Amino acid sequence: MTDFAATKAKFDLPEGVVYLDGNSLGPLPRAAAARVNEMLVSEWGQMLITGWNKAGWMALPTGLGDRIGQLIGAEPGSVVTGDTLSIKVYQAVASALDLYPDRKVVLSDNGNFPSDLYMVEGLLRSLGSDYELRVVAPEDVADNLTDDVAVLMLTEVDYRTGRMHDMKTLTELAHANGTMTVWDLAHSAGAIPVDLAGCNADFAVGCTYKYLNGGPGAPAFIYVAPRLADKAQPALSGWLGHEAPFAFDLDYRPGHGIERMRVGTPPIIQMTALSAAMDIWDTADIHDVRAKSIELTELFIHRVESTCPDLTLASPRDPARRGSQVSFRFENGYAVMQALIARGVIGDFRAPDIIRFGFTPLYIDEHDVEQAVETLADIMSNRLWDAPEYMVRQRVT
Amino acid sequence: MTDFAATKAKFDLPEGVVYLDGNSLGPLPRAAAARVNEMLVSEWGQMLITGWNKAGWMALPTGLGDRIGQLIGAEPGSVVTGDTLSIKVYQAVASALDLYPDRKVVLSDNGNFPSDLYMVEGLLRSLGSDYELRVVAPEDVADNLTDDVAVLMLTEVDYRTGRMHDMKTLTELAHANGTMTVWDLAHSAGAIPVDLAGCNADFAVGCTYKYLNGGPGAPAFIYVAPRLADKAQPALSGWLGHEAPFAFDLDYRPGHGIERMRVGTPPIIQMTALSAAMDIWDTADIHDVRAKSIELTELFIHRVESTCPDLTLASPRDPARRGSQVSFRFENGYAVMQALIARGVIGDFRAPDIIRFGFTPLYIDEHDVEQAVETLADIMSNRLWDAPEYMVRQRVT
Repeated sequence: MTDFAATKAKFDLPEGVVYLDGNSLGPLPRAAAARVNEMLVSEWGQMLITGWNKAGWMALPTGLGDRIGQLIGAEPGSVVTGDTLSIKVYQAVASALDLYPDRKVVLSDNGNFPSDLYMVEGLLRSLGSDYELRVVAPEDVADNLTDDVAVLMLTEVDYRTGRMHDMKTLTELAHANGTMTVWDLAHSAGAIPVDLAGCNADFAVGCTYKYLNGGPGAPAFIYVAPRLADKAQPALSGWLGHEAPFAFDLDYRPGHGIERMRVGTPPIIQMTALSAAMDIWDTADIHDVRAKSIELTELFIHRVESTCPDLTLASPRDPARRGSQVSFRFENGYAVMQALIARGVIGDFRAPDIIRFGFTPLYIDEHDVEQAVETLADIMSNRLWDAPEYMVRQRVT
Repeated sequence: MTDFAATKAKFDLPEGVVYLDGNSLGPLPRAAAARVNEMLVSEWGQMLITGWNKAGWMALPTGLGDRIGQLIGAEPGSVVTGDTLSIKVYQAVASALDLYPDRKVVLSDNGNFPSDLYMVEGLLRSLGSDYELRVVAPEDVADNLTDDVAVLMLTEVDYRTGRMHDMKTLTELAHANGTMTVWDLAHSAGAIPVDLAGCNADFAVGCTYKYLNGGPGAPAFIYVAPRLADKAQPALSGWLGHEAPFAFDLDYRPGHGIERMRVGTPPIIQMTALSAAMDIWDTADIHDVRAKSIELTELFIHRVESTCPDLTLASPRDPARRGSQVSFRFENGYAVMQALIARGVIGDFRAPDIIRFGFTPLYIDEHDVEQAVETLADIMSNRLWDAPEYMVRQRVT
């Protein structure tokens, strides 16, 4: 059984803050600062260029990939880290389309994170006017798996509401239709158990700065099913994905398996911070995290609904259909969130009217939930949000 | 006049090492470790998600871009940092091709860094079988500017020999031919004065871990001429290049000017290290750096040629046609470099027979050059390279 008091002690959380925004940016692992400093001074400073081999920098992208892989049910050697999630979406969809040259449609839903849609728009523009991105409502995905759909690209957990797609069922339906799947695990990895191998998923991508706590701008990851890895043609064919990067040949030959999804020089300082964050997962079981997350979100929903009648639940009520976040709708949600933040309860706002709270058992407990509810109830019942300083909308990140 | 003793003191160089590989990975700026630690503990640790605005993280990509822009003759607001150099090559060539839909050829030379060619191979494969990457010898570039060439993509300074292309002349010839230019400044930025605006360049890209000392995996940069920036269509259309990233619209609309070349979430830890490295440039003039670099490389060539008759100069003899590195050819170059490294003189080896030495006046002086030459002369005249531990070829990074 995971000792959540022990995992909480591994994070450096500001005094007096209840941090319910780990689904945007996880907090600083206590070990990260010392680890990064050690890497800077003893590796970069002392080893200089030889750090690529001596300090193992060159192996970090696949080493970290395997560690993340354990949380998402991926086979060893099937995940690599690097770049950003947007770039990894592009790689995955490009390779998936390339495997089905006779089909030209990418199917997605309007609950997907916009950048996933944007990246595919750009890709399809390059591929030609016969390609199409088809965007439907989340509940209509299955009915739109027509025989022209090459790729089904979905984010498993909706970034606004926490609604979950059923990965196993939709992957089966897609395969029965001759369609490849690309799953975005941005709000899944480290939040809920994912079983990529068990679901027979084809491609998956995700980021590491949310529930994995890798820090601002931490690298993304990509999974390619082992049965496809040596067939997938990289669209972003960079030198570190080459079969022999240091032969400096003029022609590209894709590397073996997942290595071909590497592109350029990996961000070693970011990867060092991520390594420290991943150590915490050595002491935590993702199934325990999920069970605890359900306890916390159930408690939060129950308490908010009984104290804040003006808020409407925007997340699925059934915890089995919900990720690790809870969202409510309220017309002046932006002002409510500003008032909450001013009092140390940090969640976030998504237009037009959603206030969103992430529950991350590695460092959030029942006491935090109670404190958040009390603060929210006070703000709602006394209309504390209705103040000029909270009503002025600023750029939200 | 730049005080090079003062700039040298700003780097943390290992005792007893002569580091002539700053053209692969620059050394650790002394200020970087403290700066990164401060960012981790006080910004990420204390501000959490609010760091994106409060700590100015969101503005780092363009802020750093402007600082780099000052070294390469770019107009303010025309450079942005992020991703890797390979990704930035893809962006630049894709946008350049998009501006000339009737031409299908990308012209480059076989002295280009292989990843640039690989990335274009991948891009052209997506664009269709009517596109072609044409690779010629460096001296034949001008003669191959035929009227089907949409884009001329060149690395200004050859990574193996240091040979320089004439950016101004080739850009003029390209424009006279109706051809766009993409210049890779990997071995130029921070090494030699570059005048992008004065050369009327169209696109340029580069990395920041070589002469700019940003650290392993530091972000890349891209320049788009202001006259093109609002016309350039991003192929990698990520959310942070969107006109309104936080509106979360489902359709992509490119941001204004250079902002559209942003893709995903920027690597803030790497960018913080790069910020510390860029501070050193506030105390250095790139023209002084160039003058000093020529002094050092002339001295090195003169001394090596007079003491090591078995080595053949592979770099241009004319310093005006040479970047900030010097290369020699020798059949057993790999073993020679291993012997040098074992004795604290760090350069590198590029197949099949090139030993390569980077000269970086910010932290390399005449004394270092003399020490490197003495060591090299001893190794050559006493055949110290001919030892089993140096002859076994290992993976070179």
